[in-house]
Amino acid sequence: MVIILKENPDPNQLENLLSWIKEQHVTPHITHGLHQTILGLVGDTAKIDIELLGQMEIVEAVRRVQEPFKNANRKFHPLDTIINVNGSKIGGNSMTVIAGPCSVESEEQIITVARSVKESGAKLLRGGAFKPRTSPYAFQGLRDEGIRLLLEAKKDTGLPIVTEIMDLSQLELFADVDVIQVGARNMQNFELLKQLGHSDKPILLKRGLANTYQELLMSAEYIMAFGNDNVILCERGVRTFETYTRNTQDISAIPALKTLSHLPVIIDPSHAAGVARFVPPLSLAAVAAGADGLIIEVHNNPACAKCDGMQSLTMPEFRILMKKIKVMTDARELCSSITE
Amino acid sequence: MVIILKENPDPNQLENLLSWIKEQHVTPHITHGLHQTILGLVGDTAKIDIELLGQMEIVEAVRRVQEPFKNANRKFHPLDTIINVNGSKIGGNSMTVIAGPCSVESEEQIITVARSVKESGAKLLRGGAFKPRTSPYAFQGLRDEGIRLLLEAKKDTGLPIVTEIMDLSQLELFADVDVIQVGARNMQNFELLKQLGHSDKPILLKRGLANTYQELLMSAEYIMAFGNDNVILCERGVRTFETYTRNTQDISAIPALKTLSHLPVIIDPSHAAGVARFVPPLSLAAVAAGADGLIIEVHNNPACAKCDGMQSLTMPEFRILMKKIKVMTDARELCSSITE
Amino acid sequence: MVIILKENPDPNQLENLLSWIKEQHVTPHITHGLHQTILGLVGDTAKIDIELLGQMEIVEAVRRVQEPFKNANRKFHPLDTIINVNGSKIGGNSMTVIAGPCSVESEEQIITVARSVKESGAKLLRGGAFKPRTSPYAFQGLRDEGIRLLLEAKKDTGLPIVTEIMDLSQLELFADVDVIQVGARNMQNFELLKQLGHSDKPILLKRGLANTYQELLMSAEYIMAFGNDNVILCERGVRTFETYTRNTQDISAIPALKTLSHLPVIIDPSHAAGVARFVPPLSLAAVAAGADGLIIEVHNNPACAKCDGMQSLTMPEFRILMKKIKVMTDARELCSSITE
Amino acid sequence: MVIILKENPDPNQLENLLSWIKEQHVTPHITHGLHQTILGLVGDTAKIDIELLGQMEIVEAVRRVQEPFKNANRKFHPLDTIINVNGSKIGGNSMTVIAGPCSVESEEQIITVARSVKESGAKLLRGGAFKPRTSPYAFQGLRDEGIRLLLEAKKDTGLPIVTEIMDLSQLELFADVDVIQVGARNMQNFELLKQLGHSDKPILLKRGLANTYQELLMSAEYIMAFGNDNVILCERGVRTFETYTRNTQDISAIPALKTLSHLPVIIDPSHAAGVARFVPPLSLAAVAAGADGLIIEVHNNPACAKCDGMQSLTMPEFRILMKKIKVMTDARELCSSITE
Repeated sequence: MVIILKENPDPNQLENLLSWIKEQHVTPHITHGLHQTILGLVGDTAKIDIELLGQMEIVEAVRRVQEPFKNANRKFHPLDTIINVNGSKIGGNSMTVIAGPCSVESEEQIITVARSVKESGAKLLRGGAFKPRTSPYAFQGLRDEGIRLLLEAKKDTGLPIVTEIMDLSQLELFADVDVIQVGARNMQNFELLKQLGHSDKPILLKRGLANTYQELLMSAEYIMAFGNDNVILCERGVRTFETYTRNTQDISAIPALKTLSHLPVIIDPSHAAGVARFVPPLSLAAVAAGADGLIIEVHNNPACAKCDGMQSLTMPEFRILMKKIKVMTDARELCSSITE
Repeated sequence: MVIILKENPDPNQLENLLSWIKEQHVTPHITHGLHQTILGLVGDTAKIDIELLGQMEIVEAVRRVQEPFKNANRKFHPLDTIINVNGSKIGGNSMTVIAGPCSVESEEQIITVARSVKESGAKLLRGGAFKPRTSPYAFQGLRDEGIRLLLEAKKDTGLPIVTEIMDLSQLELFADVDVIQVGARNMQNFELLKQLGHSDKPILLKRGLANTYQELLMSAEYIMAFGNDNVILCERGVRTFETYTRNTQDISAIPALKTLSHLPVIIDPSHAAGVARFVPPLSLAAVAAGADGLIIEVHNNPACAKCDGMQSLTMPEFRILMKKIKVMTDARELCSSITE
Repeated sequence: MVIILKENPDPNQLENLLSWIKEQHVTPHITHGLHQTILGLVGDTAKIDIELLGQMEIVEAVRRVQEPFKNANRKFHPLDTIINVNGSKIGGNSMTVIAGPCSVESEEQIITVARSVKESGAKLLRGGAFKPRTSPYAFQGLRDEGIRLLLEAKKDTGLPIVTEIMDLSQLELFADVDVIQVGARNMQNFELLKQLGHSDKPILLKRGLANTYQELLMSAEYIMAFGNDNVILCERGVRTFETYTRNTQDISAIPALKTLSHLPVIIDPSHAAGVARFVPPLSLAAVAAGADGLIIEVHNNPACAKCDGMQSLTMPEFRILMKKIKVMTDARELCSSITE
Repeated sequence: MVIILKENPDPNQLENLLSWIKEQHVTPHITHGLHQTILGLVGDTAKIDIELLGQMEIVEAVRRVQEPFKNANRKFHPLDTIINVNGSKIGGNSMTVIAGPCSVESEEQIITVARSVKESGAKLLRGGAFKPRTSPYAFQGLRDEGIRLLLEAKKDTGLPIVTEIMDLSQLELFADVDVIQVGARNMQNFELLKQLGHSDKPILLKRGLANTYQELLMSAEYIMAFGNDNVILCERGVRTFETYTRNTQDISAIPALKTLSHLPVIIDPSHAAGVARFVPPLSLAAVAAGADGLIIEVHNNPACAKCDGMQSLTMPEFRILMKKIKVMTDARELCSSITE
């Protein structure tokens, strides 16, 4: 951490600042410039409150050198985290596909889709029970009943299930859910994150549509700081000025997050694209760029889906896509063996 | 609502679509073009699920003509909503200033600031008890104790209080709070919004940093659809590419939201600016553009504030600003009387 | 095109509007709603001035159904455009790699790099002679001399050359250049685009960092409307809130632009990433998503490059990447043959 | 400037770096940390190429402390620059209004508008001769003839004229123009900026719709570095996710640019709003926030304007607005006299 002081800092204030810094168990090194004095802090600066520093009267600016996250930081955990979900391993250069409908609509629907995606090669089943919808007049999900139906589908197929929590008060309904999803709109619902930190279930944490990598990793840090290390990062597209696609898939998030962190990174091409016909190219791109997994919306009858039908693949489309993903995963492995 | 069909739509599918439309209690009018067929829907389209329509096979695109919000819509409620908070009226071309520290830190601090801002002319006291912080290692607020201290300050000064709720589970602590604030990160925490819709307390709803006016108004609609019409809209700056200020104050939000909706609009220049020295010009601009109020951070000792000190005014700075706000409010009234 | 009229439009104004519409050689169809009257325009609306319409007193809003571009529109030219550059074909599911240094620095440098990238499999040589730099104090390129050196490298290796024009006045220096690049900052330099429309050279048109697909295609339309159909679209990353990468590579641009237009689409992973180590994954992702080509920065000594060295691959790194691109292109072809 | 080195930097490379730094006439100060070594550079770092530094192998990151612009920097020129345009002074807390139509359409039109805006109190006349339009099919301006008509209007009314240049080749037509405007799309047309640096005419430089303050000031620096200090900065709205307004007026740009630079700052509310009814509140907000001037579109018959009619005020609307601007300017002066 580097602190740039204002011109001609008051000596008493400087002394106070230096004492404060020492109380944080880091060591300051001073550089006196013509116009500016710079303090370099040496030690563990992750827990220093950068805002507090920034507002001190003699401080012009503070620049972090080290990232403000620690548990999620690859620097301190060089090896890939691999998360075990009922035998499926997410992370470490494998390719795990999670598939299922946007919303659970009926027992028949979820079991039909679950059996089909399993046969095509999906390792986990997704499905929304609690649905965050922009309009209060839109379908809000089957809620408790939706969770029950997902568990039926799990019993029927053996697929572990992934579903979204929208509020702390729903937590006990998730007792038998395998992976709890935190949606993009809740990425900074810190009370929820803290509570999930006390759980030991894997958390699928989606990036907010205008949040940075660092903010995503700070939200992962919330969960990890309270004791739960099983965090899966999910990139689902960011908001840009482009309106032709629903969001813009940030493909760089894959190598970038894997550089910054040891956590697995999966991609949600369905929400990024917003239209089914762009889901296959975005899925293949994610594989090529090194994603650890994909979460894809599949519906038995997209034209009648209660939400997000436009972006859902049909079951046959998904089967074909899985074959292509296999080809691309093999190519990726071949590529990683080319070193000269 | 206008539905654009794909070229050569299947007649059976078209018939199905027309029946579905009639079930929604709206009337379709067809225009056959050379390349396209267009359906104009006439009637109350606010409750039609635009996504469901969009995903039908014969539909190329759907364009709304009417806004998807109804309770919050000025078209159906032409008169300004005026919200009465213990005698202070917010809305209807008055100018209400809410002031106080970012966080409640101690009884002495909150009472000192409350007395001072009251004397300077503030009508409500703000102060954070539950603090949403990006880092789990940053100060998280005094929580329950913070609410208790705010109520002490209310008792001491008579100022109604405004404070932020972060989770449904905190709701009963807010029984004696006068205005409940929903922060920018929770603007789309729909479970929270629904529950606040069952309350009758005024809700100060902050715009998310990458959300549109329509999304903000849809979140207001959530609260209103569940029965609570006392919503105050708050613009607190949007995220842009500019990093010199913390966020970018969207001054157009004032005339725009007041055109779209009858709800009061207040501005938070402190979070928009991120630095205290820009708070006065942004405040005066908001007054000139027609805001119904301002919410301003004031601290007895900004350099030692536990959060957001950089953007807090000192008590004397706030006193001076209030005098300028008075001048500017008078000028605004004079302006509104100039009609030729 | 759909025109939504204000409530109770004045009958004379409506009649005037209908006459004006007929003068544009399109036919209006009217739908009278409860609150609104809607006109659907049938015919070739690409040349109708949407702004002019929007400002008429009785018009509430205008929504385009058809895209405002025609020459660049796949609807009117269903087959892929394939552009022949001295025997190299760009477009139509081939994979063409353009490589070379950010800036031409010396004869030795450009010839060394040209020979190396040719040997690794690049089909065209890139290199900047005129450099758009944010700071007037940064290296501005070798200019005329840079063009001369590129032509030397072309003579030596036989590789066609791609280089950027920054102003109309430079045009005659480009007489022997094979592909003229228009940079992101000049995407809407309309005087330049018009003039390039009178040329018959292929134009590599880069998307501006905050421009939409439609704006990019309108800029292509400028060139095509003046007679030059040889336009290659280039996605080079858009500006987002993320600062860890220089820009954000918009991978969806590949399927989206290829849906909207028949023009070839190439990707510039170097400017999108801004750091060399992300260039390989972004390149492979672009291949997987169906790009027609890549333009990659390669330098003989990145650490001493006069600009953009941070994002340049070394010559050996490029050789390895080309092998991976080959693997990925084969996988892509295999994928495209999987249809059930 | 602060340079953060990678862990365990190679001693030879470090020595090379230190020599290079000394050649730049600045002095390095070293701080050795546990994980990192930091170099603080002392001296005039404005001309150091930050990219070159960043790409050196031993460098992890470079952070600027000083701004990279010098001529435009208030630190080195504390007093406000005041630009004299035929007797009208722009800058230094005065309020100058520039008004006129988006495009010059005919002699009668421009003279009618010029006389009217002069009578209402405008000090300069604006009008577009060369028009940058997104579509090649839209009206492109009267070009040479437009300049001629503006000069007629100047002769008739005595108002100095402001008009936009789109390309270097047009420069000699601007011999009698008083202020040359560089549009938002040309803000980084560096060849044009350099040439304007050799002129002595005032330049009205508009901020690009996705550019930062620093980028705007670097473009001003281009003009100033080549000898022309008469630069007027113009904020005309930035692109955000909001589509209800054409752009988003960045009101913070006023205090921010005036903090960073000594150049005058004017606001264009017409392009920011995109609709006439929001122009008055945005204008008054700009006055309240301390703008040095406004540039406002006024048309004799907006409904028939050849471009941007939707955002143009009528002549009577402008007359009323000027009265309000007067009231608001007086209030601003009164405010600035309140110091306790």
